[in-house]
Amino acid sequence: MILISNPDKPQWAEILKRPMMNTENLFDTVRSVIERVKAAGDQAVLEYEKKFDGVSLPSLPVLEEEIEEADGLIGEDLKAAIYLAKQNIETFHAAQRFEGKQVQTQPGVTCWQKAVAIEKVGLYIPGGTAPLFSTVLMLAVPAKIAGCKEIVLCTPPGKDGKVHPAVLFAAKVAGVNRIFKIGGIQAIAAMTYGTESVPKVYKIFGPGNQYVTAAKQLVGLSDVAIDMPAGPSEVEVLADETANPVFVAADLLSQAEHGADSQAMLVTTSAKLQQAVQTEVERQLALLPRKEIAKKSLANSKLILVDSMEKAIELTNAYAPEHLIIETSDYMSVADRIINAGSVFLGSLTPESAGDYASGTNHTLPTNGYAKAYSGVSLDSFIRKITFQEMKPEGIRSIGPAIEVMATHENLAAHKNAVTVRLNDMDSKK
Amino acid sequence: MILISNPDKPQWAEILKRPMMNTENLFDTVRSVIERVKAAGDQAVLEYEKKFDGVSLPSLPVLEEEIEEADGLIGEDLKAAIYLAKQNIETFHAAQRFEGKQVQTQPGVTCWQKAVAIEKVGLYIPGGTAPLFSTVLMLAVPAKIAGCKEIVLCTPPGKDGKVHPAVLFAAKVAGVNRIFKIGGIQAIAAMTYGTESVPKVYKIFGPGNQYVTAAKQLVGLSDVAIDMPAGPSEVEVLADETANPVFVAADLLSQAEHGADSQAMLVTTSAKLQQAVQTEVERQLALLPRKEIAKKSLANSKLILVDSMEKAIELTNAYAPEHLIIETSDYMSVADRIINAGSVFLGSLTPESAGDYASGTNHTLPTNGYAKAYSGVSLDSFIRKITFQEMKPEGIRSIGPAIEVMATHENLAAHKNAVTVRLNDMDSKK
Repeated sequence: MILISNPDKPQWAEILKRPMMNTENLFDTVRSVIERVKAAGDQAVLEYEKKFDGVSLPSLPVLEEEIEEADGLIGEDLKAAIYLAKQNIETFHAAQRFEGKQVQTQPGVTCWQKAVAIEKVGLYIPGGTAPLFSTVLMLAVPAKIAGCKEIVLCTPPGKDGKVHPAVLFAAKVAGVNRIFKIGGIQAIAAMTYGTESVPKVYKIFGPGNQYVTAAKQLVGLSDVAIDMPAGPSEVEVLADETANPVFVAADLLSQAEHGADSQAMLVTTSAKLQQAVQTEVERQLALLPRKEIAKKSLANSKLILVDSMEKAIELTNAYAPEHLIIETSDYMSVADRIINAGSVFLGSLTPESAGDYASGTNHTLPTNGYAKAYSGVSLDSFIRKITFQEMKPEGIRSIGPAIEVMATHENLAAHKNAVTVRLNDMDSKK
Repeated sequence: MILISNPDKPQWAEILKRPMMNTENLFDTVRSVIERVKAAGDQAVLEYEKKFDGVSLPSLPVLEEEIEEADGLIGEDLKAAIYLAKQNIETFHAAQRFEGKQVQTQPGVTCWQKAVAIEKVGLYIPGGTAPLFSTVLMLAVPAKIAGCKEIVLCTPPGKDGKVHPAVLFAAKVAGVNRIFKIGGIQAIAAMTYGTESVPKVYKIFGPGNQYVTAAKQLVGLSDVAIDMPAGPSEVEVLADETANPVFVAADLLSQAEHGADSQAMLVTTSAKLQQAVQTEVERQLALLPRKEIAKKSLANSKLILVDSMEKAIELTNAYAPEHLIIETSDYMSVADRIINAGSVFLGSLTPESAGDYASGTNHTLPTNGYAKAYSGVSLDSFIRKITFQEMKPEGIRSIGPAIEVMATHENLAAHKNAVTVRLNDMDSKK
């Protein structure tokens, strides 16, 4: 890890730089796969599964019997944990339900918003070294609460043509309607355009490698909505001298083990803590099974000492971390001043892994500084708010003339006329 | 207009097709302008203003004296109308303020969301034939209510190097901080990356031509957030035999006058109304100053007769109109069944132009069927919801073991360890 002491403001941008990500150079490759799936449907998807995932599938949907089989393949402890996490995610996201208020903006003019679920959503769950059943819960549970009718999940099969049983179990528990053995670009394309097997969806959620990211970017230009732009995961721990270096080191490492491009940052007002964390990271690192990955990530990671909490907060808002853990004595007053972050973990007993799995908050969050403009996934991500307005005679009489004047000045005579014909009709009936 | 009677479901997709839009072929051109602005800042912007807007500007910012001058150039009737519209937009958007609830998902585990304004937003207002001061209100008023600190507006100057006074007046009234005489691709690039004059913003809003759309798409891939994907404007009128054909025709024409690629659709259960609207459209069209534009748009537009209200609603949800006007006897029960639309106008006295200007709802809405996945602009568009969580000893004892199990099964030992070190520490102090 890189130790930095009291950096001057002009250095901040350099210090807070993320590992570079450029997916635009993949666009040509990715576009060709997308076009082929769009044109040839299931046949193309099956060919790409063979090519990219190395498996010859007889068909794409996961069968009912495979889901039942999965049930028998996972232990009771994991089942119980999944149920607990599901319950907490459900409790928190259900509390986000939106009730629009009727607002009378003028006498006889009533406006309101109504929340309506996105009918069809697609969830992408990557394969690879770890079965991300937690992400299944984070995406499918709110989709279900929102009332999405069709919840489709795509995930790449293993070489044996099977999906990991924990992913299938979580999908069943969370209420996913249909699961397909499809990975990568071909999964994103299949959900965007639909195939013989896979329904076309209106919004696609979920993480993925750079090919999945590039595919989501391309289809997101105009053919389907996506959750948010993607980037490598990251954590910042903001700590003062009261923080426990063992906890802080563990928190930094829990981010570092994600991938070589993950970033773990400490911002602290205590030189002593900075030193202690450095030592403690080394000690804990040696014990980790994924230490080779974590080591690479730590090479990008920084332990930054600043001379005031003021500056620590300013630096944090400039960084806009995906995950922010505040381990300070007065963490609530610090939290009040955080304006750019995805999810915030308060106090010494709230590690990031709580939110990653089971506190109830969502773990699909804005990375790469996107927290300055984007929220994490929440119930909002699965609904739209449609606006309604109703005018009574009193209403059109009250705002009609203003509409006529404004439309006239925007040179839109037909806009004006839509009001005029109504006012004239009302006058003629007087 | 094209008359269609009782189309079979397999024909729907063809009937509901929008005018084609493809901006990807502009990407190379657009990218070169963006790159040049990113590299050369104000100098590049000034050159492009000369090239694209045909004006040599001494500098980019609109001066305080120009804003004062604008005040004297617009009539009292327009000022009063702008104030009224502003007030209604403010009333409706202020009622959308979000108060997060604290949720205890387990004893000792508390989670909540907090709404925080996006610090810096950029608004783009096109030039062209009509000064879109209404769009200034629709974007700047909610930005101000949300609490955005920096509200930047870019709009192309006329050949005289001036911005239309109504745009300046509306910007002042709505609380825009800084206005720049910049149009097109160069405006989007300047707000995305910042220049010597123009601050870098985190999210860009507003309509524009195909170059602006392409520029927003490109920078939206990973460098800045954008409001939503763009497409030509459209209206659907859903009407039964009780509707007044004069009103319906006026509503269709108010959409048609927007541009040659606008689309105006009537879906009705009444053959008599279908006929009467056709006649009435022809009559009103002849009287419009923008009849040449409207005529082109009407060539894409359809009057569709269906045999039941059931089918009318289904067709409407399949189309997902940006604007939906429901002129039926029982419009509230019809409205209850609308699941895909941007903004809905209820009853015979609520024309689309009410929402375009002054009812209080936002007129920046999802076109091109995007209403299936996107909401229109609202207060939500200017905030993020940051999640917070706080665990007490009781909380980590209650969900810690589940986190440990799940992390273990996702092969993330350091995630588990962040809980374990805390549980061990608590145990050691018992």
